[in-house]
Amino acid sequence: MNVIDLRSDTVTKPTASMRAAIAACEVGDDVIDVDPTCDRLERRTAELLGKEAAIFMPSGTMTNQVAVRIHCKPGDEFICEAGCHIYNYEQGAFAQLSGVVARTVEGPAGVLSASQLKGLIRPFNDHLVRTKLVCLENTHNRGAGKVQPYDHVEEICTWAHESGLRTHLDGARLFNAVAATGISAEQWSRHFDTVSVCFSKGLGAPVGSALAGPKEMIQEARRHRKLFGGGMRQCGIIAAGALYALEHHRARLVEDHANAQLLAEAIRQTEGISLSPKDVDTNIIIFAVEPALGSSAQFAAELKQQGVLSLPISGTQVRLVTHLDVTEALCRQAAKIIKQVAGELAKGNTSTRELEAAY
Amino acid sequence: MNVIDLRSDTVTKPTASMRAAIAACEVGDDVIDVDPTCDRLERRTAELLGKEAAIFMPSGTMTNQVAVRIHCKPGDEFICEAGCHIYNYEQGAFAQLSGVVARTVEGPAGVLSASQLKGLIRPFNDHLVRTKLVCLENTHNRGAGKVQPYDHVEEICTWAHESGLRTHLDGARLFNAVAATGISAEQWSRHFDTVSVCFSKGLGAPVGSALAGPKEMIQEARRHRKLFGGGMRQCGIIAAGALYALEHHRARLVEDHANAQLLAEAIRQTEGISLSPKDVDTNIIIFAVEPALGSSAQFAAELKQQGVLSLPISGTQVRLVTHLDVTEALCRQAAKIIKQVAGELAKGNTSTRELEAAY
Amino acid sequence: MNVIDLRSDTVTKPTASMRAAIAACEVGDDVIDVDPTCDRLERRTAELLGKEAAIFMPSGTMTNQVAVRIHCKPGDEFICEAGCHIYNYEQGAFAQLSGVVARTVEGPAGVLSASQLKGLIRPFNDHLVRTKLVCLENTHNRGAGKVQPYDHVEEICTWAHESGLRTHLDGARLFNAVAATGISAEQWSRHFDTVSVCFSKGLGAPVGSALAGPKEMIQEARRHRKLFGGGMRQCGIIAAGALYALEHHRARLVEDHANAQLLAEAIRQTEGISLSPKDVDTNIIIFAVEPALGSSAQFAAELKQQGVLSLPISGTQVRLVTHLDVTEALCRQAAKIIKQVAGELAKGNTSTRELEAAY
Amino acid sequence: MNVIDLRSDTVTKPTASMRAAIAACEVGDDVIDVDPTCDRLERRTAELLGKEAAIFMPSGTMTNQVAVRIHCKPGDEFICEAGCHIYNYEQGAFAQLSGVVARTVEGPAGVLSASQLKGLIRPFNDHLVRTKLVCLENTHNRGAGKVQPYDHVEEICTWAHESGLRTHLDGARLFNAVAATGISAEQWSRHFDTVSVCFSKGLGAPVGSALAGPKEMIQEARRHRKLFGGGMRQCGIIAAGALYALEHHRARLVEDHANAQLLAEAIRQTEGISLSPKDVDTNIIIFAVEPALGSSAQFAAELKQQGVLSLPISGTQVRLVTHLDVTEALCRQAAKIIKQVAGELAKGNTSTRELEAAY
Repeated sequence: MNVIDLRSDTVTKPTASMRAAIAACEVGDDVIDVDPTCDRLERRTAELLGKEAAIFMPSGTMTNQVAVRIHCKPGDEFICEAGCHIYNYEQGAFAQLSGVVARTVEGPAGVLSASQLKGLIRPFNDHLVRTKLVCLENTHNRGAGKVQPYDHVEEICTWAHESGLRTHLDGARLFNAVAATGISAEQWSRHFDTVSVCFSKGLGAPVGSALAGPKEMIQEARRHRKLFGGGMRQCGIIAAGALYALEHHRARLVEDHANAQLLAEAIRQTEGISLSPKDVDTNIIIFAVEPALGSSAQFAAELKQQGVLSLPISGTQVRLVTHLDVTEALCRQAAKIIKQVAGELAKGNTSTRELEAAY
Repeated sequence: MNVIDLRSDTVTKPTASMRAAIAACEVGDDVIDVDPTCDRLERRTAELLGKEAAIFMPSGTMTNQVAVRIHCKPGDEFICEAGCHIYNYEQGAFAQLSGVVARTVEGPAGVLSASQLKGLIRPFNDHLVRTKLVCLENTHNRGAGKVQPYDHVEEICTWAHESGLRTHLDGARLFNAVAATGISAEQWSRHFDTVSVCFSKGLGAPVGSALAGPKEMIQEARRHRKLFGGGMRQCGIIAAGALYALEHHRARLVEDHANAQLLAEAIRQTEGISLSPKDVDTNIIIFAVEPALGSSAQFAAELKQQGVLSLPISGTQVRLVTHLDVTEALCRQAAKIIKQVAGELAKGNTSTRELEAAY
Repeated sequence: MNVIDLRSDTVTKPTASMRAAIAACEVGDDVIDVDPTCDRLERRTAELLGKEAAIFMPSGTMTNQVAVRIHCKPGDEFICEAGCHIYNYEQGAFAQLSGVVARTVEGPAGVLSASQLKGLIRPFNDHLVRTKLVCLENTHNRGAGKVQPYDHVEEICTWAHESGLRTHLDGARLFNAVAATGISAEQWSRHFDTVSVCFSKGLGAPVGSALAGPKEMIQEARRHRKLFGGGMRQCGIIAAGALYALEHHRARLVEDHANAQLLAEAIRQTEGISLSPKDVDTNIIIFAVEPALGSSAQFAAELKQQGVLSLPISGTQVRLVTHLDVTEALCRQAAKIIKQVAGELAKGNTSTRELEAAY
Repeated sequence: MNVIDLRSDTVTKPTASMRAAIAACEVGDDVIDVDPTCDRLERRTAELLGKEAAIFMPSGTMTNQVAVRIHCKPGDEFICEAGCHIYNYEQGAFAQLSGVVARTVEGPAGVLSASQLKGLIRPFNDHLVRTKLVCLENTHNRGAGKVQPYDHVEEICTWAHESGLRTHLDGARLFNAVAATGISAEQWSRHFDTVSVCFSKGLGAPVGSALAGPKEMIQEARRHRKLFGGGMRQCGIIAAGALYALEHHRARLVEDHANAQLLAEAIRQTEGISLSPKDVDTNIIIFAVEPALGSSAQFAAELKQQGVLSLPISGTQVRLVTHLDVTEALCRQAAKIIKQVAGELAKGNTSTRELEAAY
C-alpha cells in the first residue's frame, strides 16, 4: 500500500535536483571561517526578508530560542499567543535555558489583536519581570496554518515598538503566508526586529532554519548558537539543500494550499468530523472528531490502516498537512479515505486497537 | 495629621508585648545547629497546618519559590491562576532561578475551577514541558482577598493528585481564610503537599514566612533556602515575633474583616468608584475609579493629601487593606475621606499633581 | 559542664544591651518604603566602607551572590582563590542561579598574587566565557583567617580595573582584617567595586550582612535581593542588632585575636597536631591531626567530650574560632583540653565513637 | 599559492566518495519517526563504542553538554582537567544552561592521575555542591593531542564508580587514541558511562557528533537535544557523511600521526621555537615561540604569508593539526616553511603586521 503521509510538511524528502545541488556544493569550516554555501544561503535569506543579516541553524527551535535570548535577559518577559510554538513546543527552553517568563494571551485561531496587548506592559518595579518582547507566529500552526491579518501584525508591532518592546516573528511557515496573501516576505518582516524561517517544512529541505535581523543582533546570535551547540563545520552540505529549497520551492506552495482546500472540503461534507478552526488558510487542516466516532487517536489509527498518516494533536483533534510530497491525486485519495473512515466509525466498525497518543 | 496606612497588612509594627517576646527569646545558631525559638515556631506552624515539618524563611517569595523548586525541575510546568502572586509578583523567579514554566488560567476574582484544569496536563513528549504542580492562592490578593471556595480547592487538589501532580498553597493570608470561614488551617492544608504562610501580613510580625509539608520535602527546602541565601544565624530574634503573632493575632483577624466591610460599604455608596471585584471576603478591598474622576494614581494621591495611604495596583484600580494597626474608628474616618475625595474629584477639584505609579 | 563553643564566630548570642536596642528600635515596611533602622544601618555601613550606598540582607551568601549577579551575566566568568567561600560554601549559586562560571587559582593560605592572575583574561571569542570579575576574601576563612597582604590587594585590583574587570571583596570578616592591621575598612574597600560585610560573625549580631558599592549597583542589588527572597518588612528588628554590633563590637575584635594566639601557641607546643596553615593572623585557627592520633572527626569528638566544640573541616583538619562569647579564661581552658586530648589520643585512649563528619 | 591548512582537523572537506554516499542516502523525518541513515550511524557508533545506544547531534559541544545534563542537575559538580574542552571552549554552557559547577584540576599535558582526585568528593552538606561526575578528554586537545595513559583512565574511572560518581569521556578525537595505541574504542569506552565522538574532526565528515551510553541515558539525551535545538529532520544527509567517515577514515588516522611527527621533528630542530607540551602522541602539535621571535600571532601571520595556516592558542603558543586534506608532501613543505619563518624572525625580518588574535 502506498502511504500518504499528511502528518507534517517536515516529512518531505529531498528531490533528485536538490540532492545534486547538495552533492556539488562548495564547503568550508563555518566555525573557524565561513562555509561559502552557508554564507550564500544566509545572504539570500536576509535579502528576501529585507534584513541586514541572517544566520543558519540546525532547527527552528534553535532560531526561536536564540531570538528570545537576544531580546530578553533572565527576569524578562515576552508576550505571545497561548497556542504558539515557542511557548508550547520547544520544551520551555525560554525558561529552562534563558530564565525568561512567557505571558500568554489567547487569540481565536492564534490571531492576536493589539487591543488585547495594550495595558500588558508591566511597570518598572522590583516585584515584576520586565516586559521586553512580543512574539507572533505566521502562519500559526495550531491555528490550522492561519495567516495573521496583516493589519493586526502592523498594529501590534507599531504599538510594541512605540512602547519600547522588541518584536520577533516565528516565521517557520512565513512563505506559506506569502503564497497565500501575495504580501512579500520583506513586507511581513519589516515589522519585526528578528524573523525566523524554516527550510525543512513546506520548502522541502532536509534540515535547517535561519534567523534574520540587524547585523549586531545576528552577531550576538552567533554566540548563542555556539552555546546551544549549533555551530556546524562544513554545513554547506545542508545549507545547499536549504538554498535549493528557497530558490525552487517557494512558488509551488500555492499547490499545497489548493490541496489543503480539497481536504477541507471533504471534511466539511463529512458527518461526525468538522474543521476546528473553521478556516483553512494555507496547508494545515485541523478537524475535530465527534465523541460518537471515538477519539482522535482512534480516528488516526483507522486512517493509518487505510494508508493515510495524520497527527492527533489533542484528545479530539487530528491535524493534516499538505506538502511537496503529496500530489493533488494523493490528496483526493486521502479525502476519500477520510470520508470512508468517518462513515465506518459512525457505524461502530473499528479495525484497529486504539493507540497511545502523545500529542 | 494622623496617617491611616491602608496600603498593605505588611505595614503593621510589632506591639509592645511582641517586642518583649523578641527581647527575651532564647537563640542559637540555626545554620550550624538549631535556633530553639525558630524550632518552636517551625513545630507550631507544622502542627497548625497538620504537616510533618515546617521551615522558617525571611520572606513569602522565598517560601513560594522554594516550594516550586521542590516540586519542579527545569523544564517542568506549574498551573496557576493568571493573577496570582507566584506568577506576577515574585520577579519570575520560577523561570529566572529554577527554569520552570508557568501555565496560567484566568479565574474570576482569582477563583479556579477543576473543570478549567482538566485536560491541561501535557502528554509525555520531547517537545513539551512536564506538567508537575498546581499552585493555588488563598486568600487571593488580586482577587481582593477572595477566599477560594472550599469545594473548588478540594476538587482541584483531588484531581491533581489523582493525575500525579503535586499541589502547593500560597497561604500568605491563609489565616484570613480561616477567620472568614471557620474552616481550620489544617483542613485547608490537607489538600496540599506544601503550604506557605506569612507572619508579617495580617498576623503583624516584623519579618518572616514558613513553608510546611512532609519531612523529606522540608529537608530539601533547607537546601534550597541555603542556596537562595535564606539561612540565618540567631533567627530566633525574628522567629519570636512570628511565634507571638501566630499565638496572639490569629483570632483578631475577624476585626480586620469587619473593618473591611465598613470601607466596602462606603465605596458601594459612592458614585464614581466601585468595588472590583465586587466581593470583599476578608481584609482586602479593591475599587475601580471611573475615568471621569481621573486615574487610580491621582485618586491615591488625593487620599494621601487627606492622610489615607492606599495602593494603586493598575491604571484604574486602588487597593486598601485593613490590619492590626487600623482600628474601627480609623476605618470609619478613612471611609469618610474616600467619599469626600470621590466627591471633590467628580467636581474636578484636584489638590495634587498626579504621581508616577509603579504598580 | 560549661561548653566552650569554638566552632564559629557565628554562634555568638546578642548581649543584653543589644537586645535592648533591638526591643526599642524604630521600624517601617522596608519593602514598600524604608525601615528607618535598616536605613541607618545601611548608611553607616556605606560610610564605614567609603561607598555611596549599602543594602542589608539576611545572609552573607546572599550578599556575595547578589554581587556576582551585579557584575556578571550568564556566560561570564569570575576569578577567585580555589579555597574561597563564594566558590566552595555557597552551593554553587553563581552557576545554579546565575549561570556564571568560576575560574579558580590556588594561593597559599588563600593569598593570591597579581602575577598569578595576569594572562587569565580570556580573549573575545564565541567559544569562551567572558572574564568579568575578580573576587577576593579578606580575611580568608580557609586560610585560617589570613589577612590578605595589602600590597597584593592593591596590585590585583589595580590590574583588574586597568584590564576592564570588576572587583568584589567578600569581607565577611573584613573588620577582623581592620583590627589586625590598623588599615581602615575604607582603605581596604577602596580597591573594590563592591564589598560585603557580615554582622553575625565576629561582630556578634544575630542576623544579617550588607553589600556596599556605587548607588547604581546597590539599586540593582535591591532587585536581585527581591528575586532571591531577601526583601524583609520590618527588618529594623534585626538591623538594630547589626547596627549595635557595628558600633560597639568592632574595637574588641583584637581580644579575639589575642585569644586565638593563646590557642595557636598551645597547638604549637603539642605533639601530634600542628597549625595548618602555620600563621594565625586573626580569630581562626586550623590545625592538622596526625594520623597516629586518628581523624579530625575523632579529635573533635574527644574535644566535645571535654566540653570544647570545634569543627572538623577536612579529614585531617580541625577549625577553632574565637569570638565575643569566649573569654580569655575560657580560651586558656580550651587550650589545656586540646593538649590533654592530643596526649590521650597519642596513647591510644579513646572515649568516643567516631562521628560522621560533613565538612 | 597553495594553502596548507593546519589550523584544525575540522577543516577537512568531504571526498568525492563521501559526497556520493551523501547524495544517495535514504532519509526520513528523524524528529517524528526515525531517519534510517541516522539510525544506522547511531547503531554503528554504539557498536564500535560497546554501548547500548547512541544519538547523533550537530556538534561536539552539544554532545558534551547534553552528557553533563544527563549526569548532573543544577547545583551538582563535575571534576575535569583545567585545560579541557568542556570547561574552556564550550562557553561555560554547563553553568549557563545547566547550573552545574566545574571543579578543575591541573594535569601535565592534560593528564590526570587518580591520586589527584581522591579526596575531592564533597561530603553531603547544604553549603556544598554535590560531586557527581568526572569528565576526561582523550586525546586531549590542549595537551597537544595527548593520549591519556590507559592505566590512569582505568584507575580514575574505577575510583569514580566505586565512589558513586558517573564518568563521561569527551572522545572528540577518541579514534586518534585508538589509532595511536591499538587499544580499541570499545576498550577505552568501557570505563565511561557516556562517550562522545566527533565525525567532523580527523574522520573528515562535514558535520556531526554522537553521544553513546546506556539506552535510558540516550533516551534522556534525546529530550535534552530537542531542548538545545538539535533535533533535525532528514539528518541522514549529514549522517551519511559521518557514517562514511566512520567506515573509511578511521584506519588512515595513523598517516596523520606520522605527518605530525614530521612537523614535530622540524620544530625540535629549529631554534627559537619548541614543542610545548614536548610529546606529540597523535595529530596535534603545539609549539612555543620565544619572545625574541615575536608573539604567536606574529609567527602565525608570517606562516600565513608563506601559505601555511596555523592557530595561535595563547600569546606564545601556536597549534598545528594534521588531517585528511594534508598529505605527507604538504607536511614536509610546511615543515620547511616553519624553519624558514623562524629563521627570518630571528633575524628580525617581518613581512606582516601583527594581527589581532582571539585564541
